[in-house]
Amino acid sequence: MYRDRIRLPSLLEKVMSAADAAALIQDGMTVGMSGFTRAGEAKAVPHALAERAKITPLKITLMTGASLGNDLDKQLTEAGVLSRRMPFQVDSTLRKAINAGEVMFIDQHLSETVEQLRNQQLTLPDIAVIEAVAITEQGHIVPTTSVGNSASFAIFAKQVIVEINLAHNPNLEGLHDIYIPTYRPTRTPIPLVKVDDRIGSTAIPIPPEKIVAIVITNQSDSPSTVLPPDVDTQAIADHLIDFFKQEVAAGRMTNKLGPLQAGIGTIANSVMCGLIDSPFEDLTMYSEVLQDSTFDLIDAGKLSFASGSSITLSSRRNADVFGNLERYKDKLVLRPQEISNHPEVVRRLGIIGINTALEFDLYGNVNSTHVCGTRMMNGIGGSGDFARNAHLAIFVTKSIAKGGAISSVVPMVSHVDHTEHDVDILVTEIGLADLRGLAPRERARVIIDNCVHPDYRQALDDYFTSACALGGHTPHILRDALRWHINLEETGRMLAV
Amino acid sequence: MYRDRIRLPSLLEKVMSAADAAALIQDGMTVGMSGFTRAGEAKAVPHALAERAKITPLKITLMTGASLGNDLDKQLTEAGVLSRRMPFQVDSTLRKAINAGEVMFIDQHLSETVEQLRNQQLTLPDIAVIEAVAITEQGHIVPTTSVGNSASFAIFAKQVIVEINLAHNPNLEGLHDIYIPTYRPTRTPIPLVKVDDRIGSTAIPIPPEKIVAIVITNQSDSPSTVLPPDVDTQAIADHLIDFFKQEVAAGRMTNKLGPLQAGIGTIANSVMCGLIDSPFEDLTMYSEVLQDSTFDLIDAGKLSFASGSSITLSSRRNADVFGNLERYKDKLVLRPQEISNHPEVVRRLGIIGINTALEFDLYGNVNSTHVCGTRMMNGIGGSGDFARNAHLAIFVTKSIAKGGAISSVVPMVSHVDHTEHDVDILVTEIGLADLRGLAPRERARVIIDNCVHPDYRQALDDYFTSACALGGHTPHILRDALRWHINLEETGRMLAV
Repeated sequence: MYRDRIRLPSLLEKVMSAADAAALIQDGMTVGMSGFTRAGEAKAVPHALAERAKITPLKITLMTGASLGNDLDKQLTEAGVLSRRMPFQVDSTLRKAINAGEVMFIDQHLSETVEQLRNQQLTLPDIAVIEAVAITEQGHIVPTTSVGNSASFAIFAKQVIVEINLAHNPNLEGLHDIYIPTYRPTRTPIPLVKVDDRIGSTAIPIPPEKIVAIVITNQSDSPSTVLPPDVDTQAIADHLIDFFKQEVAAGRMTNKLGPLQAGIGTIANSVMCGLIDSPFEDLTMYSEVLQDSTFDLIDAGKLSFASGSSITLSSRRNADVFGNLERYKDKLVLRPQEISNHPEVVRRLGIIGINTALEFDLYGNVNSTHVCGTRMMNGIGGSGDFARNAHLAIFVTKSIAKGGAISSVVPMVSHVDHTEHDVDILVTEIGLADLRGLAPRERARVIIDNCVHPDYRQALDDYFTSACALGGHTPHILRDALRWHINLEETGRMLAV
Repeated sequence: MYRDRIRLPSLLEKVMSAADAAALIQDGMTVGMSGFTRAGEAKAVPHALAERAKITPLKITLMTGASLGNDLDKQLTEAGVLSRRMPFQVDSTLRKAINAGEVMFIDQHLSETVEQLRNQQLTLPDIAVIEAVAITEQGHIVPTTSVGNSASFAIFAKQVIVEINLAHNPNLEGLHDIYIPTYRPTRTPIPLVKVDDRIGSTAIPIPPEKIVAIVITNQSDSPSTVLPPDVDTQAIADHLIDFFKQEVAAGRMTNKLGPLQAGIGTIANSVMCGLIDSPFEDLTMYSEVLQDSTFDLIDAGKLSFASGSSITLSSRRNADVFGNLERYKDKLVLRPQEISNHPEVVRRLGIIGINTALEFDLYGNVNSTHVCGTRMMNGIGGSGDFARNAHLAIFVTKSIAKGGAISSVVPMVSHVDHTEHDVDILVTEIGLADLRGLAPRERARVIIDNCVHPDYRQALDDYFTSACALGGHTPHILRDALRWHINLEETGRMLAV
């Protein structure tokens, strides 16, 4: 039943068990695996590797596109397999190991990993493990629900293991657009000038003799964990839609807006859902992950085309979308994350980037990653790729967390992922701060007046007033700048009740 | 004597005094002026404006390329003319006014100002004041020693004042390459694929009827204030050259290295001078400011071509270079700063970006701008444009300042301009830290061992050890993270002697 998925007959003899394939991975190796936002990861080989490591310990450096599903990062962590991990993760077990200093985690802009590999600034993968719907007559690999870094991993690795996953609709073939930048010093412009341009091939071109093992699987991607919109995320969406209307009225955008990018997760997904009932038409996405909202917007006739690097759906949407792929296929493309997130393309197309902040400060600096400046949540992901070069760099968050114990707006962020220079718009359920063209003191006024939860507004205003009395372009009181975070660590609340 | 500089005869009637031209600038206007790293600024009109404001107060928003020379920012500040200023400055009087909150300073990535104007996200200039060596037969403006944002300012402004500066060698004509990106949604790739590509015109194309005044001047640019190399800057250069040799030996670069970018100032200039005695050959620059070192390298036969947005020279080199321009002209091009600093081009060409840090921290976050997190020095300039997309993002600084009262390597930077994600290499006179592919705890070890002054090494190591005991991906002790800065503010020293 898998023979029609391996269209180069000479490769049929490479079919083997996951355990046999995993045996090709040796202690100390660097391994590049498919998988991006828990979509399209290789499933059987990493599982078999973890099982083997329980008996015979080994350590590897694991590179992926982004996060893995099916608890694979958990299994690999518990089996002690991961010595180094990059460039992104979302697993709670792995997160604990990272924060304990047991796994060295290299948190990277998602567009940059393969560029650093290409420049030999990172160790090249010894072996790549790539999930596929098929292998072509030429021996090229057709990815599944994500492209991520799979193409470059397969190109750079000395050996490639392919997992043919029969659970994926073979009609995914044709969805992908594999473009690899040329080498310097003769690198040419990326010829992508419209969201729906196709500039590459539909499969990953590698010499078929590099394929050393093929494993047949039949296992779904993990369902997305996004929560449905709530009153706060709806308020955030409403503020943003009002803002977009003003931008259109001011002649700065058309009713099509610009190509939209939305980060992974509940808030960004909810904001996108909010566009269903908006007056905007003929929308497009140029994003990294395509979530439920993408398909809801297509179904509503609002979204004309979506470019991404992966598709990650909830149980609600999964069977419907992948079971009716022909309904969507001419409106979709999946690209390598280097291209979906490329600074050149993001700047050229004029992306509207909507990403989630963990916290932001008075002056518009954003922390996307570190709780109290120390403990990693997931990673910066693509937020920096988009925010730096976007037409509009928008960050969204609820104004409070943990029942009000935490304010998402603080005097000084405890870690900076996006500097004030790269942040245009901040939105909480309270309101929206438009920071464009403002000096720091002006930014603070707009943020306090529009984004802060009422329980924290006076305290933040007091901090700002006292800081301004001390002077400075970006007024701070260094003794108190991280006080709210220190309180949180010591008392469980940023401010006394 | 200026008639041959105004080659469209109908414009001769626009010649007037600086005072008359300055009278066109009215209270509340937004004004775009030429000038980048104290090169090629309009000289007479801003001076006349400051003189007038002493009698009749007025306020404007002033945009430039970068810093102005000839004390113009000082004169305008003292006359109370500046309500808003962007995107960069280096004047001590203006700096005081910014830090006092009297002038709203918008500190921007230098590549982004005109992009934000083009998108109407900043107020378009009412009037542009551009220094020129000539006006062509078509009424187009030939810039002088900088291009900066002059081209777009002239294109966006309703009215243009031209200062023809007879002190500049008319042979500067032909040096400039004016390329303006097309508008979205049909923006096309920037067709620049080699450092020496010419992709635009040699003059700024505007309808001549927009030129409302022409002022004749005869005044030099201010000389550069760079200091000669000293033992510490030589040590920094030596560390960097050793590193480049290792990169070549490892096959990651050729003996040509990559196109070099060097920030303004003494340390970066000294590092470039260090290349004169290096084994590297056929070097190129793709930078924003071309300083003495550029011409020293050309004279030494080391540098084949230099692309920049301005030329800023010391008294030592000024007459020699501009008096013998034909010797250098085929090896130089000056571009709009949007193109010299463009993320698309920086990534494509694989720039080696060398910029100066004010301080950096254990984990490789860099502060380029704010003393003790509050007081602005100059601005981020182009450092972020280059660091984010460079092949190698290098930051250099001396390990201590103020006779040892300040360590440039601190537990946590008091302000972040460049995040750990964007910083590859850190260099002080003590040594070089290669951070590529390292997790935060590994970065800290390499930084402590290689970059910190011995007087601070034990204290920083103690902080790191204690922070690691608390845990976290990026270990910090929030109570102590800014302690060194607090000490500095309170006692004048980061650590007790």
